[in-house]
Amino acid sequence: MRVAFQGVPGAYSEAAAAELFGSDVVSVPCESFEMVFTSVEQGLCERGVLPIENSLAGSIHRNYDLLLQHNLAIVGEHHLRVEHCLIGLPGADQAEIRNVISHPQALAQCEGYLKKLGVSTSPAYDTAGSVGIVKENKDRTQAAIASRRAAELYSMSVLAQAIEDNAANYTRFLAVAREPVLPAGDAKTSIVFTLRNIPGALFKALSVFALRDIDLTKIESRPLVGKPGDYLFYIDFAGSTAEQSSARALDNLSEYALTLRVLGSYLRHRLNPLTL
Amino acid sequence: MRVAFQGVPGAYSEAAAAELFGSDVVSVPCESFEMVFTSVEQGLCERGVLPIENSLAGSIHRNYDLLLQHNLAIVGEHHLRVEHCLIGLPGADQAEIRNVISHPQALAQCEGYLKKLGVSTSPAYDTAGSVGIVKENKDRTQAAIASRRAAELYSMSVLAQAIEDNAANYTRFLAVAREPVLPAGDAKTSIVFTLRNIPGALFKALSVFALRDIDLTKIESRPLVGKPGDYLFYIDFAGSTAEQSSARALDNLSEYALTLRVLGSYLRHRLNPLTL
Repeated sequence: MRVAFQGVPGAYSEAAAAELFGSDVVSVPCESFEMVFTSVEQGLCERGVLPIENSLAGSIHRNYDLLLQHNLAIVGEHHLRVEHCLIGLPGADQAEIRNVISHPQALAQCEGYLKKLGVSTSPAYDTAGSVGIVKENKDRTQAAIASRRAAELYSMSVLAQAIEDNAANYTRFLAVAREPVLPAGDAKTSIVFTLRNIPGALFKALSVFALRDIDLTKIESRPLVGKPGDYLFYIDFAGSTAEQSSARALDNLSEYALTLRVLGSYLRHRLNPLTL
Repeated sequence: MRVAFQGVPGAYSEAAAAELFGSDVVSVPCESFEMVFTSVEQGLCERGVLPIENSLAGSIHRNYDLLLQHNLAIVGEHHLRVEHCLIGLPGADQAEIRNVISHPQALAQCEGYLKKLGVSTSPAYDTAGSVGIVKENKDRTQAAIASRRAAELYSMSVLAQAIEDNAANYTRFLAVAREPVLPAGDAKTSIVFTLRNIPGALFKALSVFALRDIDLTKIESRPLVGKPGDYLFYIDFAGSTAEQSSARALDNLSEYALTLRVLGSYLRHRLNPLTL
């Protein structure tokens, strides 16, 4: 199986693809999220893997937009623990590092650790790519921040691990495909809908789930730029569209919603019963 | 008045502060969001300005976390249109640019424009700072992507404006202060609460608003890492806590909610009746 992801080899998205589909799949790096969609649409890859929300940084609206613009189905989800490592040349030691490069967000997430280390920092495009830069520079006093996977891929050394200030750093990834799946077991369904801008509209919409005892696992409103007062709603709920109560809830919701798109039903991923 | 913001002079946050409080306030650059909070808490600044959500990138959970950790009140909001400019040395021309530097997110938001221009790109820590780098380098073939305000501040030239691929790029900023305000007029209130993990809990919570015809302007759930099945809910609703119906709704909500924090009531900012 070929799985498209955004980023360069060693990116966290590639780690998510490997954890979700097994490390024997062929992961295909794409320059942009858009290219992940088109490579699945055109059949170049059977699956695409996309980050959709991070526990610290929030939802990635760009990928919700692309889900609406394209006609792929969500067929899976995966929670990945984002554990940053300090990565240097083989034989290098944490004590000799003077400069650390990575994506600005990764540098910010390790701010406390880097301050204690007393190093200068430089921005890079992506975490995995910064490991490649350190390797090319052949400078033992330089290190990158990226995943353990990136260190292994470039045959570089992990000088320190779990260096992020906040360990509660998880990214939820979605897997997309051309055809929907019918999950057998603990399922989730993702939908996007819009409502008329009238008082109580959301309350009525949620009643279709509450009155059927269907649990929501996510709800998020997003203002529609250009249409003041109008909102998109993102909802994930427990159950698959193959279940009668879910099907009836969606049927009922379509009475209130101006637009309604079912993005897919898929097996629910619980990273660890103690965490997420 | 002194207003703290995260970033360097010329940052979009500083532009938001100027639009919200007038250009005669003293804007105080801070290294981190945390420092914005502490400088207001310690009385070094009367106000702080923080980005809380972007129309393309989503909510900034980090700032919600800091709002809960600190004891400041939200006293205002502002929607800023993020309009990226290509900025070069005075006398430079768009046609001679070969390399463009900026924050990776800004570069990504102008991807289409930059491809047409056929230039190489380099990552920088922030948009405004990249203008300073171009100025120092004194290279007419290099340009930065930042706000018009940053160009003016560094006495540099705007070579092209509104170069972002998606014009629907708005960031919502919150103003915080040590004491809450009582807004006179069209108000909004922001709250954060947690609910017991039982079916229908959210529906009951929302009923306290729906049954009083109180409009919600934002709703977002956020899973609590370490407490599977538990969620934080972010809600903004129309009205101030000084209004009886709002006060009663919050009183009613406290019967269901495990925790409830009122972050503040403030004047609603409508950027433009045709957009947001």
